[in-house]
Amino acid sequence: MYTNDMNRRRMFAMEKVHKAIEKGNGHTILSTGITGDDARMAKAAVDAGITMLEPNHPAVVLARGYKGITTMDEAEQIRHEITVDQMAEVTHGVRSVVGKDIYITVGIPGGFTEVVPTPLLDEHFIQMARAGADGLHTHKSSLHDLEELVNKAHKYGLCVDAYIGLPTDKHTFGISAETPEEVRKVAKQMEDIGTDMIGMMTGMSYEGIAAGQIPEFLKERVCAMVEAVKVPTLAEGGINMDNFKAFKDTGVNILVIGTAIDGMAGKAIGKACADFLKM
Amino acid sequence: MYTNDMNRRRMFAMEKVHKAIEKGNGHTILSTGITGDDARMAKAAVDAGITMLEPNHPAVVLARGYKGITTMDEAEQIRHEITVDQMAEVTHGVRSVVGKDIYITVGIPGGFTEVVPTPLLDEHFIQMARAGADGLHTHKSSLHDLEELVNKAHKYGLCVDAYIGLPTDKHTFGISAETPEEVRKVAKQMEDIGTDMIGMMTGMSYEGIAAGQIPEFLKERVCAMVEAVKVPTLAEGGINMDNFKAFKDTGVNILVIGTAIDGMAGKAIGKACADFLKM
Repeated sequence: MYTNDMNRRRMFAMEKVHKAIEKGNGHTILSTGITGDDARMAKAAVDAGITMLEPNHPAVVLARGYKGITTMDEAEQIRHEITVDQMAEVTHGVRSVVGKDIYITVGIPGGFTEVVPTPLLDEHFIQMARAGADGLHTHKSSLHDLEELVNKAHKYGLCVDAYIGLPTDKHTFGISAETPEEVRKVAKQMEDIGTDMIGMMTGMSYEGIAAGQIPEFLKERVCAMVEAVKVPTLAEGGINMDNFKAFKDTGVNILVIGTAIDGMAGKAIGKACADFLKM
Repeated sequence: MYTNDMNRRRMFAMEKVHKAIEKGNGHTILSTGITGDDARMAKAAVDAGITMLEPNHPAVVLARGYKGITTMDEAEQIRHEITVDQMAEVTHGVRSVVGKDIYITVGIPGGFTEVVPTPLLDEHFIQMARAGADGLHTHKSSLHDLEELVNKAHKYGLCVDAYIGLPTDKHTFGISAETPEEVRKVAKQMEDIGTDMIGMMTGMSYEGIAAGQIPEFLKERVCAMVEAVKVPTLAEGGINMDNFKAFKDTGVNILVIGTAIDGMAGKAIGKACADFLKM
């Protein structure tokens, strides 16, 4: 491959990310769920000012009613049955509608922590890059796996966002790190192997936490990550209107929001239907 | 084929329609657009009380961002490029999520008034019936074409809803009939050839009409159709919160609503995104 062509491709992509963060004075939103995979709703999000989108395969399980599954928890268990072809089709469609200036990172089978063999071949990276992905949204569970993925992604001009999780997380969505010290160390290692954006999984239970707050230990973890690296940082999971400000105050750059937005779309549709039925 | 098996299949399907109309004291809603093709939003609609859904191929053009198209007008011009396979996948997914008691009628390439050869083969009817469709949502422009379609649909246990339009309509979505007399005659002919539900295209311009009203000539056309036939009747196009009551007062049984609901979903998503970006 012509490595400089693909380095330029990544550079242009990261410019979109930096612009988005600048425009929001240090933070922006990565919009996922229905706004990542339905071109109509992606356009509605972009028209409202969103400049980063994330289609992903578990959300596509739900969008397509695959095997009758209706919860994200079940979707995570069979997401590997969605094909790279399907994710390329989704990405190409969303890209066609939102234009070239929107950053699109895509979750594809093989890019998460897998429970069945899910090979990620060179042709899959090429296919996703050609479908219009700027990057891959990944959830590998070891530095070794992540490094292999990052190298291949970079070869084909794709950026990578990758995540840190807790060893006790219900679904493994990242490389384990428990204390703030461990988080700092792991985040730095992820940056050293070339990860373009580094995130924290934050979707654990918030029991006992006052509205508008996030748990102290979570705040410390996110802050540790933010301080440790120079690349843009993300927080993903459990972010909603109530705790958004608390997340933002950690200094994290990109807040990943999916379920909260899908919930509002579903609620609006439910209300519209109920209103029509009542008339 | 075993004709009685397929007649029973259609009878069970029409029972769902009659139940829906009874439950709403003479009228119900056929929900289309995003509630017809996105399993998440189909479930939101059904949870709110909707019992009739309509996935269709022009809406799938928009859902998939096919060729970057964002308006229904453009989608209508290339809808034949969506495949029966895609519509079967959509139908199967929505059916898997909403369960067997919901009536699903599906728009497929070949079932509308086509501008390029779009063969509708026996295997396509079988495929749609097996994917979970109760019926086909059709827009043929002559009695002859409709009769051929109805016969084949019935052979494979699918009901058919078909429409009457104006010769001056921008897109041809039905058999032409201008005066109330012509509407009565055409509606009766459609019923005689076995059409299971008969509808009126109502999506023309409403210029000069007071809010909450529909034009007098349209009201007369819908009423003429309603009086002429015994099968359930539909109205499709331009129905929204403002004129819903006026449409309902014509006595039509099934009000087809798509764009109005999609608009509210898009608006809710736009507002959610804008609110997050402002926080």
